[in-house]
Amino acid sequence: MRHILVIGIGAGNPEHITVQAINALNRADVLFIPTKGAKKTELAEVRRDICSRYVRSSDSRTVEFAVPVRRTEGRSYVESVDDWHAGISETYEAMLEDELAEGKTGAFLVWGDPMLYDSTIRIVERVRARGRVAFDFEVIPGITSLQALCASHRIPLNLVGKPVEITTGRRLAENFPHNSETSVVMLDGEQAFQKIDDPEAEIYWGAYLGTPDEIVISGRLADVREEILRARAEARERMGWIMDIYLLRKGADFDE
Amino acid sequence: MRHILVIGIGAGNPEHITVQAINALNRADVLFIPTKGAKKTELAEVRRDICSRYVRSSDSRTVEFAVPVRRTEGRSYVESVDDWHAGISETYEAMLEDELAEGKTGAFLVWGDPMLYDSTIRIVERVRARGRVAFDFEVIPGITSLQALCASHRIPLNLVGKPVEITTGRRLAENFPHNSETSVVMLDGEQAFQKIDDPEAEIYWGAYLGTPDEIVISGRLADVREEILRARAEARERMGWIMDIYLLRKGADFDE
Ligand SMILES: C[S@@+](CC[C@H](N)C(=O)[O-])C[C@H]1O[C@@H](n2cnc3c(N)ncnc32)[C@H](O)[C@@H]1O
Ligand SMILES: C[S@@+](CC[C@H](N)C(=O)[O-])C[C@H]1O[C@@H](n2cnc3c(N)ncnc32)[C@H](O)[C@@H]1O
Repeated sequence: MRHILVIGIGAGNPEHITVQAINALNRADVLFIPTKGAKKTELAEVRRDICSRYVRSSDSRTVEFAVPVRRTEGRSYVESVDDWHAGISETYEAMLEDELAEGKTGAFLVWGDPMLYDSTIRIVERVRARGRVAFDFEVIPGITSLQALCASHRIPLNLVGKPVEITTGRRLAENFPHNSETSVVMLDGEQAFQKIDDPEAEIYWGAYLGTPDEIVISGRLADVREEILRARAEARERMGWIMDIYLLRKGADFDE
Repeated sequence: MRHILVIGIGAGNPEHITVQAINALNRADVLFIPTKGAKKTELAEVRRDICSRYVRSSDSRTVEFAVPVRRTEGRSYVESVDDWHAGISETYEAMLEDELAEGKTGAFLVWGDPMLYDSTIRIVERVRARGRVAFDFEVIPGITSLQALCASHRIPLNLVGKPVEITTGRRLAENFPHNSETSVVMLDGEQAFQKIDDPEAEIYWGAYLGTPDEIVISGRLADVREEILRARAEARERMGWIMDIYLLRKGADFDE
C-alpha cells in the first residue's frame, strides 16, 4: 500500500504554510511538484522555496511534472475538463507506479487549499478507482487566495449573519446580486465585473496575493472599475501572466 | 501609535497554525485571548496550547478576557448583534488603554479565520472609529472550519466550475438548492438540514473538527439524517456544547 498526501501550501506567501503541512511534507518520501510551463515560473519558484525552507528530511526526493494542458477547442467546458482530468489521471498513475515504491509516502503540493477550484482530489480519486495502483490518501488544508484577499483588505468575507457566494467569472453575470450580498469571483478570464451595472456595488480586488508583486484595489465599482482594468492589463503585460480574485458586495452590516 | 494583529489560529487543531501566524504571535507584546465562559473550556485550552507551543518570546504577556454575552430577547438578530458589538467595542477599547502601552503590539487570537463569521475585524474597526485609542492593524488568515470539514471528508468544496454558497442555519431553508449546487452551513442552532426534503441531496457533516473529539458523517441526506441528529444530540449532551458545520450538495461533476 502506498500513501498519498494532498497538501495545501497556501496561495503565494510561503509563510501561509501550516505546521500540519510542514509535518506532512516531512513525512513524504517523494514530493510531486507540478510545473505548469514557462509562463508561471514564479509559481514553481514558490513551491521550490517552500520545499527548501521547510523540508528537513534529507532522504526525500522531488519529482517535477508537467500538467497536461486543457484543450478547449470544439468542446464544452465540462467535456474539456473531463478529458483533461482523464489525461492527468494517466500521468499520475504512471508517475506513482514509476516513482513511488510500495509502502512509501508521496505528497502532492497544491496551490492554496486542495478543496477550492482544484482538481487534485478528483484526480487522485480517479486513479484510485482505476485500481492499478493501490493507495490511501489524506488531505491537508492550506490558506486559500480568498483568505489572502480578505486579509490584505482587512475585511470580513460576510456581512453580519449573511450568506456568501464563491463563483467563477463565467457565472457571475447570471448570479449577481441574487441571494448573496457578497460574491467572490475566481478563475475570471473575462473580467466579469465589467458587466455589473450596479451603482451600489463595492469591489475588493487583488492580484498575485501574498507575493512580492501583490496589488490590491478597492472602492465603489463604478469609481475603480477602470483603475482595476488598467492595473490588471499593465501587470499582465509586465509579468506575462496574472492570477486575480475579487469580492463584490452590496449592502452593509446591520440592514435587515 | 499602537499596533494590533488579528490572527487566525485555525479551527481546532493546533497544527492548523501558519508560519505567518506563529511569527505574528511572536511579534506581540500582549496576547489577548477571549475565554467565553465555562462551557467551552476546551476552546480556551486550544488557544492556551497554541501560545505555549508556539510563543518563543518570553517577554510577552497574556490577557484573558470575557466576551460579553449576546442578549437576544425582544431584539431582532441584527439589533442584538449591533448592541453586542457596541458592548464588545467598549471592552476592547478599555482593554487596549489599560493593557497596551503606546508603541506596543497587541494580538487577538481568532478561531479559524477572522474573515469568516467572526466579529473581531468589525470590533477593531469600531474601536478605531471611536478615536480614543490610536492604532493600526493587520489581519493574518487562518484555516477555517470549512477547510477542516472538506479535508476530513477528503472532498472538493465545489463541483467542477460550479459556485458554492456559505450560509447560516437561519438562511438555508430559503436558499437551498438555489443557484449553488453546494451549500455550506455554519452557525446552525436548529439543524436546518432536517427541513431539506430532497432525495438527491448529499450531506457531509462534521463536529469538533480538528480536535480529538472530531466526528464526521456523510451520505445521502435521507439515509444519514437520523444518524447525524442522534450523534449530535449525544455529543452535545456529553460535552456540554457543540460546534458543527456541514456541506449539502446536489448533482455531480460533469453534468452541464
Ligand atoms: C485553479 S484556482 C486555484 C485556487 C486555489 N486552490 C486556492 O485555494 O486559492 C486559481 C484561481 O485562484 C485565484 N488565485 C490563486 N492564487 C491567487 C493569488 N495569489 N492572487 C490572486 N488570485 C489567486 C485566481 O482567481 C485564480 O484564477
Ligand atoms: C462564529 S463562527 C466562527 C467561524 C470561524 N471563524 C472559522 O473560520 O471557522 C462559529 C461556527 O463555525 C463552525 N465551526 C468552527 N469551528 C468548528 C469546528 N472545529 N468544528 C465544526 N464546526 C466549527 C460552526 O458552524 C460554528 O457554529
